[in-house]
Amino acid sequence: MVGAMSQAAGECPQASPWSPREAEILAVTLQLLQEHGYDQLTVDAVAGEAHASKATVYRRWPSKAELVLAAFTEGVRLVGDPPNTGTLRGDLLHLGEAICQEGGQHAGTIRAVMVEVSRHPKLNEVLQNQFLKQRKAVLQHVLRQAVDRGEISAEVVTDELWDLLPGYLIFRSIIPDRPPNRRTVQALVDGFLIPGLTRTSG
Amino acid sequence: MVGAMSQAAGECPQASPWSPREAEILAVTLQLLQEHGYDQLTVDAVAGEAHASKATVYRRWPSKAELVLAAFTEGVRLVGDPPNTGTLRGDLLHLGEAICQEGGQHAGTIRAVMVEVSRHPKLNEVLQNQFLKQRKAVLQHVLRQAVDRGEISAEVVTDELWDLLPGYLIFRSIIPDRPPNRRTVQALVDGFLIPGLTRTSG
Repeated sequence: MVGAMSQAAGECPQASPWSPREAEILAVTLQLLQEHGYDQLTVDAVAGEAHASKATVYRRWPSKAELVLAAFTEGVRLVGDPPNTGTLRGDLLHLGEAICQEGGQHAGTIRAVMVEVSRHPKLNEVLQNQFLKQRKAVLQHVLRQAVDRGEISAEVVTDELWDLLPGYLIFRSIIPDRPPNRRTVQALVDGFLIPGLTRTSG
Repeated sequence: MVGAMSQAAGECPQASPWSPREAEILAVTLQLLQEHGYDQLTVDAVAGEAHASKATVYRRWPSKAELVLAAFTEGVRLVGDPPNTGTLRGDLLHLGEAICQEGGQHAGTIRAVMVEVSRHPKLNEVLQNQFLKQRKAVLQHVLRQAVDRGEISAEVVTDELWDLLPGYLIFRSIIPDRPPNRRTVQALVDGFLIPGLTRTSG
């Protein structure tokens, strides 16, 4: 049982890559981001608020964009734990609602990260390795469990659309006026994801 | 027949709100955006390239963000014409592929517009009225036609997820490394949209 849990954790690595002090600086960064937004954020303010020297911050994160991306991925890391409700529907609802919360709290940061990541291949690499890989593993874990329970067939699990649930919900979070909520997630899961994943291929 | 066509056109208004001279300035803006990106764009460069005075440009679009949003909505206006392939699947594939093209050409502009629109309520209004309203009308038109043909039942057409197809494809266009293509659209349409829209509600 412990072995199985470690294996599951190994498949969805969620351990923080940061020291407690670094994690503290990132938490301060995230808080300032939520209060003032990406453009207003300065490394000076982060260092001041975290009682760290600017050199300490810059040594670890040479640019503001790197600092912000690290703060974001660290801040949403825990939300990414694989759910285990016992049904595919329950797991998808759980994941979807967590993503809505994330999107609501960090919409401005996500928009800024998308701009920065598109400009800097190195940042993109960090996003891929520190964030997207784990998210994909969580989704795949949920689907594999549903296959094991006999809820869906293995053939419907493909790479192409692994991020349909998070992708649409993040889209809704970063456009104005229509933040997704529990009803959005239910409509998506019951109206499209479950019908699609349980379809009998013709 | 002509009456029916006018009515359909009235439901999905696609007429340009700009004079030919204004449309020309917007086309120049869009070209410079594709070449140099949002941050590098200046109203000076647009005026120079379009052989217009800066005052002329500023009189119509008082800020760079307004100019860029107008250029974007005008540039993708024509792509938004309602398809009429005779089947729901055909119409959705057609729309999806058009959105992939749009997303591929304008990813940087879309990212920048998302940031600007979130900051300026007035820009958001323009986005809603000059762009999203029309897109929603096109999607609804496609679904209504499918209802009329007996392909789907009217109850599956809801407001909550009207933008699932464009929303996911735009998400894929603005994150790095995974631009959506014809295969993405097919997987989405055949794997989720058609199964969801044709499901027999339980």
